[in-house]
Amino acid sequence: MKAQVLVIFGGTGDLAMRKLLPALYQNHREGALADGMRIVGVGREGFDRNAYLAKVCDALRQFVPVDDFDDAHWAIFSSRLDFVQLDALISSDYERLADTLRVQGRPARIFYLATPSELFIPICAELNRAGLVSVTSKVVLEKPLGHDLISARHINREVGTIFSENQIYRIDHYLGKETVQNLFALRFGNGLFERLWNRDGIRDVQITIAEQVGVEGRGAFYERTGAMRDMVQNHLLQLLCILAMEPPLSLEADAVRDENLKVLRSLKPLGRDEVVRQTVRGQYTAGQMHGAPVAGYLDEPDIHTDSRTETFVALKVELNNWRWAGVPFCLCTGKRLQSRVAEIVVNFRDVPHSVFGVPATDTRGNRLVIRLQPDESLKLYLMTKAPGDEMTVRPVSLNLEFATAFSTSRRDAYERLLLDVIRGRLTLFMRGDELDAAWQWIDPVIQAWHEQDHPEPYAAGSAGPDAALALVGQGHVASCDA
Amino acid sequence: MKAQVLVIFGGTGDLAMRKLLPALYQNHREGALADGMRIVGVGREGFDRNAYLAKVCDALRQFVPVDDFDDAHWAIFSSRLDFVQLDALISSDYERLADTLRVQGRPARIFYLATPSELFIPICAELNRAGLVSVTSKVVLEKPLGHDLISARHINREVGTIFSENQIYRIDHYLGKETVQNLFALRFGNGLFERLWNRDGIRDVQITIAEQVGVEGRGAFYERTGAMRDMVQNHLLQLLCILAMEPPLSLEADAVRDENLKVLRSLKPLGRDEVVRQTVRGQYTAGQMHGAPVAGYLDEPDIHTDSRTETFVALKVELNNWRWAGVPFCLCTGKRLQSRVAEIVVNFRDVPHSVFGVPATDTRGNRLVIRLQPDESLKLYLMTKAPGDEMTVRPVSLNLEFATAFSTSRRDAYERLLLDVIRGRLTLFMRGDELDAAWQWIDPVIQAWHEQDHPEPYAAGSAGPDAALALVGQGHVASCDA
Repeated sequence: MKAQVLVIFGGTGDLAMRKLLPALYQNHREGALADGMRIVGVGREGFDRNAYLAKVCDALRQFVPVDDFDDAHWAIFSSRLDFVQLDALISSDYERLADTLRVQGRPARIFYLATPSELFIPICAELNRAGLVSVTSKVVLEKPLGHDLISARHINREVGTIFSENQIYRIDHYLGKETVQNLFALRFGNGLFERLWNRDGIRDVQITIAEQVGVEGRGAFYERTGAMRDMVQNHLLQLLCILAMEPPLSLEADAVRDENLKVLRSLKPLGRDEVVRQTVRGQYTAGQMHGAPVAGYLDEPDIHTDSRTETFVALKVELNNWRWAGVPFCLCTGKRLQSRVAEIVVNFRDVPHSVFGVPATDTRGNRLVIRLQPDESLKLYLMTKAPGDEMTVRPVSLNLEFATAFSTSRRDAYERLLLDVIRGRLTLFMRGDELDAAWQWIDPVIQAWHEQDHPEPYAAGSAGPDAALALVGQGHVASCDA
Repeated sequence: MKAQVLVIFGGTGDLAMRKLLPALYQNHREGALADGMRIVGVGREGFDRNAYLAKVCDALRQFVPVDDFDDAHWAIFSSRLDFVQLDALISSDYERLADTLRVQGRPARIFYLATPSELFIPICAELNRAGLVSVTSKVVLEKPLGHDLISARHINREVGTIFSENQIYRIDHYLGKETVQNLFALRFGNGLFERLWNRDGIRDVQITIAEQVGVEGRGAFYERTGAMRDMVQNHLLQLLCILAMEPPLSLEADAVRDENLKVLRSLKPLGRDEVVRQTVRGQYTAGQMHGAPVAGYLDEPDIHTDSRTETFVALKVELNNWRWAGVPFCLCTGKRLQSRVAEIVVNFRDVPHSVFGVPATDTRGNRLVIRLQPDESLKLYLMTKAPGDEMTVRPVSLNLEFATAFSTSRRDAYERLLLDVIRGRLTLFMRGDELDAAWQWIDPVIQAWHEQDHPEPYAAGSAGPDAALALVGQGHVASCDA
């Protein structure tokens, strides 16, 4: 593979220190980076290279598992690192970057924009102006990819004048999780699901990402974002795509992304009435987490006293297509919930008639529970006979714990996705038209909310607003122990 | 419930001592027997009641789990017991039985014929002649229920002149196993199997009952019976019925037995050519079990030196009906095999096309393994992603161990079936027309074998004849660890 250089804008920021550089270190340690591969951190800070190395070294000691960090690997890894001081909005600063890159010969360049999305367009324009973009260049865009349809389209269009679509990597770290990729294997590696995976076999699907954390010092960011933009527009809709897509021809990038796009375009629009009936917004109030009192959202730093920003969303959505017409997909996510869990529950249809002399609903119980985190597992609930003289059926689960089944260590999401960028694999990255379709569906919901009252309050540490439980039933976080 | 008396012909025999009386003791201990319920052992031996009680007590100490046997329960249980000396072929002996029953008032009578099937007709005739049979009487017939179609029909007809069909309990202890009854729950309690359980969803089904024991002192019986009559005609075909039946209207006896009958009648007849191609008979030769040498079948006591009796059978059968046309059902059973296991393997069809860039056969792997014994379990094999950068799929199993899932103790098969007899529940007992249909299909196979050479030899402790492996593939006992 041609030598590459990875330039990280926001190279001194939180994401770089916590995720990107530890992931690169691990990739290096496992021999997955080419020898000539170089990494350039870019930031406004007045560091020299040594100061930057010291900061990176501290970060690695903190965020790499202690057994994985050692001086020998660090010595070689650090030799790959450079730092360039640069203000993204000052053209002349890009000369320094050009100088540094020039020294390195002519490797292909990867520009990782770990910056607010407002900077995507200026940075790309300046890179282009400085002559740093070629057909072998790639650009990685971190979420949020815009704030609404207009801003997302603006980014797509402007970045698209400088990079062609197959040079653009819109990263959603959720898709880098082994567990999420395993959804492809489950859906398309198992003949038995082929026959079940449609409106005839499935009653409803519930996708939940519940967090225990609050806004965590990101109040200013969160205040203008909210759960819908922060979680639904990307992670939840992408999970929905993988679960609902038609079988692609292959796992080639555009084969998969074409199918994702079809799912997003089939999302039944939520008009004002549907927003009232099929969505619940919530905002956490003071409560208890792990036995200790925690503040409500309105009391967090940098939050408006009258904020209507949602920290919880539940949505009941439908897909207007042959496979899924009439099957509700319930999406649910929130902060300061009682448990931290990301999971997908697929409820299969009941038997059509009970032979056991009980209502057929008593044989309701077939469901597949795919837990993405914290502990990746698969559970398939089947009805079996309860011991005893009577034919009484009872649900039990067949279990698979991935940690037990696979002893191999699994790559962190960013490790995987950075390698995909380096290797030019676009399958797990959102295409521009997907992003556009997602915002087309999201925007009217957010607009309808603006006409509503405040979000429903829910106590920190609870299962979310009561209205959400009523809406999505057991798809809700509270079901996770069911 | 009206008081009943249970009369056990063969009341001093092996089955009574090892299974029936221990099962009755356990039912008694658990309070499942009505207070007025009495038990009369019948045998040729010149015991008095005390001698019989002593023999029963010895048997219970040996065959009831040590924690379950205690003097207090024995004192009451033994008070239910009587013994009548009787030669089944001597009419006048039945007077003694009549006298004993007369003393007990007029409870409903259950006659359990734990005797060779040659005695079924004489015993029923004598009971009738002695005026002991009424419309409230029941008769329990132990397998083997005849030796071939002619003898089975003869028994059906003659017993049928004295007892009506709903008074006749043809017992197959295999159907009393919780694990076997659980097949009903699995098939008819799970909507997801409704869509898979047919020729579109299933590639083949394999039913295996492998034994490690040899003929165990029953040489004379086994020599004229063989594995086909001893195991296939009853246990294996009954398992096949439960797996293959159309959904019954309910689990009422005739609703289930009507469906069993349809399965048996749909068995594609095996003509001479099919017997050559689709069946393998085996006979074990000397070998090793658990590291110790064991004798071959021909060297067992009471076996003809040139015996052609099969101790192993593998059959590939098909069902001529809409649900199953073209789906092979592989039946396999034998003695002196390497492992003791009874299990059902349902192989689901492959995905129609691989999206993973590998042949679709590499995604062949969906199967449901239902282990009936020794350790009841369910395993569903799914393809999941192997950890790593590539999308490689690998089969893993979702597991359910029943012992872990259900802490309740489970009834022994005879405990359950005896209670069914007492309560008049016929669902788990073969109806006369089922027996007839089974023999209609079995007889021509045995006749075709008579024209063949000796069975294929296989070493004791092996997986059976090589030809069987070739015929039924992984349905074979050797697959159990796959």
